[in-house]
Amino acid sequence: MTEASIAEDKLLDLATAALTRGGMRAEEAAEAARILVLADLFGLRTHGISRIPQYLGRVPLGGIDPQAVVQVERVAPALAIVHGRNGIGPLVGMRGLDAALEGARAAGIGAALVRGSNHFGPIMPYAFLAAEQGCASIIASNASTTIAPWGGKDTRLGNNPMGIGVPNPGGDPVILDMALSVAARAKIREHAARGEPLPEGWAADAEGRPTTDAAAALKGFLLPVGGHKGYGLAVMVDLLAGLLSGAAYLTHVRAWDKEPGVAQDLGHVFIALDTTKLGDAAQMAARMADFAAIIHATPPADPARPVMLPGEREMESFHRARREGVRVSAADLRRVEEIAGTV
Amino acid sequence: MTEASIAEDKLLDLATAALTRGGMRAEEAAEAARILVLADLFGLRTHGISRIPQYLGRVPLGGIDPQAVVQVERVAPALAIVHGRNGIGPLVGMRGLDAALEGARAAGIGAALVRGSNHFGPIMPYAFLAAEQGCASIIASNASTTIAPWGGKDTRLGNNPMGIGVPNPGGDPVILDMALSVAARAKIREHAARGEPLPEGWAADAEGRPTTDAAAALKGFLLPVGGHKGYGLAVMVDLLAGLLSGAAYLTHVRAWDKEPGVAQDLGHVFIALDTTKLGDAAQMAARMADFAAIIHATPPADPARPVMLPGEREMESFHRARREGVRVSAADLRRVEEIAGTV
Repeated sequence: MTEASIAEDKLLDLATAALTRGGMRAEEAAEAARILVLADLFGLRTHGISRIPQYLGRVPLGGIDPQAVVQVERVAPALAIVHGRNGIGPLVGMRGLDAALEGARAAGIGAALVRGSNHFGPIMPYAFLAAEQGCASIIASNASTTIAPWGGKDTRLGNNPMGIGVPNPGGDPVILDMALSVAARAKIREHAARGEPLPEGWAADAEGRPTTDAAAALKGFLLPVGGHKGYGLAVMVDLLAGLLSGAAYLTHVRAWDKEPGVAQDLGHVFIALDTTKLGDAAQMAARMADFAAIIHATPPADPARPVMLPGEREMESFHRARREGVRVSAADLRRVEEIAGTV
Repeated sequence: MTEASIAEDKLLDLATAALTRGGMRAEEAAEAARILVLADLFGLRTHGISRIPQYLGRVPLGGIDPQAVVQVERVAPALAIVHGRNGIGPLVGMRGLDAALEGARAAGIGAALVRGSNHFGPIMPYAFLAAEQGCASIIASNASTTIAPWGGKDTRLGNNPMGIGVPNPGGDPVILDMALSVAARAKIREHAARGEPLPEGWAADAEGRPTTDAAAALKGFLLPVGGHKGYGLAVMVDLLAGLLSGAAYLTHVRAWDKEPGVAQDLGHVFIALDTTKLGDAAQMAARMADFAAIIHATPPADPARPVMLPGEREMESFHRARREGVRVSAADLRRVEEIAGTV
């Protein structure tokens, strides 16, 4: 895949222009674009500007409303329900994040439960923005069904992503952003395309039997990390993000790829905790530095691969991209330029 | 192991008497006893009244202070730091839970970060009590080191337990309570004692190489669920519960079994979200019933083992114990009776 390099501000302008041309109001397009461009800065290309054609492709089918007026309903000083009204996911996500941050500033901790949303990008950008404001965060979303309940043989749960971030007044935040399957479905598609067997433990066939046959796995389902533990986490994420928010959950969530013209009604949960209220920033920075030093000093099993903190690789990509330009796929860039009408 | 059956209120009185005789104030002993007795109701015997001799055994060594005056420092309307002052863990935990619930009632969501604590029992009782008050909860604790960072070969992380609970106005709450290793260290000890090999993926030897030799595993470390994902969760739990709370973290946490006379300075995090502010109870009950029905209707891989929700087995044990008496080990009961001075 040919790569292109582009400065962050140029990529942000381009993504904003594409989303605006796709029907969004310019200011809101810039907010949504910020999430996707941050994803590309972190090197999370499958969740960056490459998603713009997919989001906008659903607009003429009635599957997404780029003009949706997202509504924040504050039900308590630090708790809000955000009505996404089937808007572009990262815009709805930004409204959720902002509502949670507002609660955190007022009360020390704040939460937003989001309904009526769509794919909102990766979690890392939201956790990063929360950390920039001194907030730790817990963020999760439900998703269309690709995982079977533990002991079952029918997909009824999404590969629900969840993330936790902790700010560091002395440097980079530590951010975990993970989905709950052992491997992503996209990786199984890659193995199937190459005719290669899967590693054990990735997937089950349609009968619920563990399989290393990628084609059989595509007809079956993904296996959760840690068996019943990953299953349990996927259930709890769906209860928090989907059920409590008033969104769809489990098999009620529609799949954008199978029914692009139907609203997904995804749910998210955003929790932000204001760490600046917990004590002195210098002391917090010293403790974060000590924490990182202890982890980094772990003798590695393979001397060539030092031990890292969650999100550390992505933060390295972020700093490199800010210095040297954001690396994206040339084909993805071209498609977004076409949508923006700049080529 | 011989079993005994005892009514819940009798077990609560007995545990309270034992903790009081061990140095706690009677009212506080009753609070701590409630957590341990709930653990036994849920069938979580390793974290129930069997812990009383262990907790109190550290008192004469100066390792735990049963007279500690736990202090709640409210740093924002919905955020508190709880100073455990090396008190009995479940008492400190109850103070943390109460502080989080107070914030949730006031602001919709509340949190408590707890420092200076000890082993606080399992998470399920706290999540259950939160659910009884209509609150969803996210609760976690750090622990002494038994897990190596991913790619490392030296234990620097605890098998940090985390739990998530969601109340159900129409029935039992759904509660996940899990540690972050594939298997508990106690299970590896059992295999070693029986001279049996371990299943693959449970543990590594002292050099960080995966092993099925239980004796070698005891000199090595536990492997986290889902490899780097479980590692990431263990790090984030320690950052939230240990670092942000002002407690010890990573290798700073002392092991009660190796140094019973030294304060552990464990940290916990309690987050409570008031779901009664999210809408009508009847509607919430209907959605919870629908959620459970979808999960339960999953065709099982093994027809003899229907698909269950997280915590469902423990809730069954709970109801049975309330009906028929709490089943505990006769030896554990005898030891608590001895401490209480009732035999």
